[in-house]
Amino acid sequence: MTAPWITYRPALKVLDCTIRDGGLVNDHLFDDGFVRAVYMACVEAGIDYMEIGYKADKKMFARDKFGAWKHCDEDDLRRIVGENPSDLKLSAMIDAGKTDWRHDVLPKDQSVLSLLRVAFYAPQVSEAADMIKDAKDKGYEVSANLMAVTTAKEQEIDQVLEVLATTPADVIVVVDSYGSMYAETVELLVKKYLQYAKDTGKEVGMHAHNNQQLAFANTIEAIIHGANRVDASMMGLGRGAGNCPMELLIGFLRNPKFRIRPIWRVIQDHLLPLSQKVEWGPYPQYNVTGQLNEHPRTAIQARSGEKRDCYVDFYDRLTSDV
Amino acid sequence: MTAPWITYRPALKVLDCTIRDGGLVNDHLFDDGFVRAVYMACVEAGIDYMEIGYKADKKMFARDKFGAWKHCDEDDLRRIVGENPSDLKLSAMIDAGKTDWRHDVLPKDQSVLSLLRVAFYAPQVSEAADMIKDAKDKGYEVSANLMAVTTAKEQEIDQVLEVLATTPADVIVVVDSYGSMYAETVELLVKKYLQYAKDTGKEVGMHAHNNQQLAFANTIEAIIHGANRVDASMMGLGRGAGNCPMELLIGFLRNPKFRIRPIWRVIQDHLLPLSQKVEWGPYPQYNVTGQLNEHPRTAIQARSGEKRDCYVDFYDRLTSDV
Repeated sequence: MTAPWITYRPALKVLDCTIRDGGLVNDHLFDDGFVRAVYMACVEAGIDYMEIGYKADKKMFARDKFGAWKHCDEDDLRRIVGENPSDLKLSAMIDAGKTDWRHDVLPKDQSVLSLLRVAFYAPQVSEAADMIKDAKDKGYEVSANLMAVTTAKEQEIDQVLEVLATTPADVIVVVDSYGSMYAETVELLVKKYLQYAKDTGKEVGMHAHNNQQLAFANTIEAIIHGANRVDASMMGLGRGAGNCPMELLIGFLRNPKFRIRPIWRVIQDHLLPLSQKVEWGPYPQYNVTGQLNEHPRTAIQARSGEKRDCYVDFYDRLTSDV
Repeated sequence: MTAPWITYRPALKVLDCTIRDGGLVNDHLFDDGFVRAVYMACVEAGIDYMEIGYKADKKMFARDKFGAWKHCDEDDLRRIVGENPSDLKLSAMIDAGKTDWRHDVLPKDQSVLSLLRVAFYAPQVSEAADMIKDAKDKGYEVSANLMAVTTAKEQEIDQVLEVLATTPADVIVVVDSYGSMYAETVELLVKKYLQYAKDTGKEVGMHAHNNQQLAFANTIEAIIHGANRVDASMMGLGRGAGNCPMELLIGFLRNPKFRIRPIWRVIQDHLLPLSQKVEWGPYPQYNVTGQLNEHPRTAIQARSGEKRDCYVDFYDRLTSDV
């Protein structure tokens, strides 16, 4: 039997989204020690990018209601990373419809951020295209992240990809917002995205959610079919069912620059304690919304209420005809 | 985008191993109510087989040290299932080297069991072949389960499969004992097993462990490549990291005979309470032994001790050169 993946693909880059996607679990209220520990783990593990939060509009998301990583002001970033004297590149997400990007995205020479990822739903593609151009003009690497693609029609996806192909985005990411994809969906979408991306020199990425315990498997599947940018998070921290666990992904990849020991360290010292205060992971309600290809909001509500262990009731509610 | 698996394969059969593999977590000490609830859930969910335990040698495994499902005497079986007036077929596992099979395997007309699964390591293949013939002569369906295949050499695997091809076994199962397989290993082994199985009319099966959160994904992969017998367990109950979760598998399969609601019911009422008393699942130590392709015994020990949350220490011990 051939040893699996005994070689590696140098072009493959890993993005850690622990603090960014994890911030959706606790309104970004991480203490500085936690954020710094994840940053140091990423540096020591040889990870390529760390996404630290959002640059959300302060008129829509008040500063006193969220942690600093909802807005990622430069002062907050530098408090953790200084001038970021490392090979790790920093990233923030900017959401269409929720970001004052003309004002809040600074020229690159004023920022420690290197990458901006534009998140949007299919109907928001025109604003997304403007955001991509603006961020590129300001000097950043730019990623286009079409969310909830599993509920978009094939024609919509094609139209979005046609628009994205005309933008200066460096990366287009297959985003499994609802954790509903199986391997064949991943294959289909990665191949489709690559068709549009290849001619314009863009890379394709994968962002998986773990509703059906498939986040890691789907990330491998995306890699097999040519995705060169993959997201993961320490201990899978992320909204709802969480993301692809970094400790599994790094155990799989064969690039000798990656080190898994710093990841076990930050999980042991920081993620495990956090998991005793806030909840994420592939619990039954997330299995159900993933199977039904639905937004996890009903599952998040169910997990936080008194009926958190009433799985049959939850299943009945989501599958009732009335 | 084409809807995934909108049709189904009637030949695909599902085996529930909740009580059998789960018995390795608690020395088979389930109370009758638990076993009956799993049995009823299997019947109502339309599952094809339920594996209820072992027929272990009582001289090696004393009756007073284990629950009834270590030995599966007919009286114990009938106390739960009566004459089993259902379409669900019952199964027991018989281990090479640990079973007094000549004496303890009764003629089929004296048993409520329908299927016997012969578990063995590669060097035990000669006894396994005798056990397969004996069980077949006594009237059972028979499955051949080569364990720990990921540590066997390719030549050994081929030799075992050559022997199995000459036996009257109905099924040959790809067994990922250490939870170390990735999709490509599954593809390779399922195709190899099918080569030997097809000419003699045998089916190929898949038994996955969840060390790397890949049990469900690997089970799907096996199905894609032609496996028609797949194992799963309620809430993934099984030794160490556990098995492929039945609630995920049944959510994926499209055969209308399957029902998921009874599975949520038994998980809510019986598996969740059990999970508060005994532990299974893809905890960090199981990730590590899966990545290293090792038996989970060191991980099981680590999880039961005071250093259960010392992941770095565990990683260092397993990867030390001295």
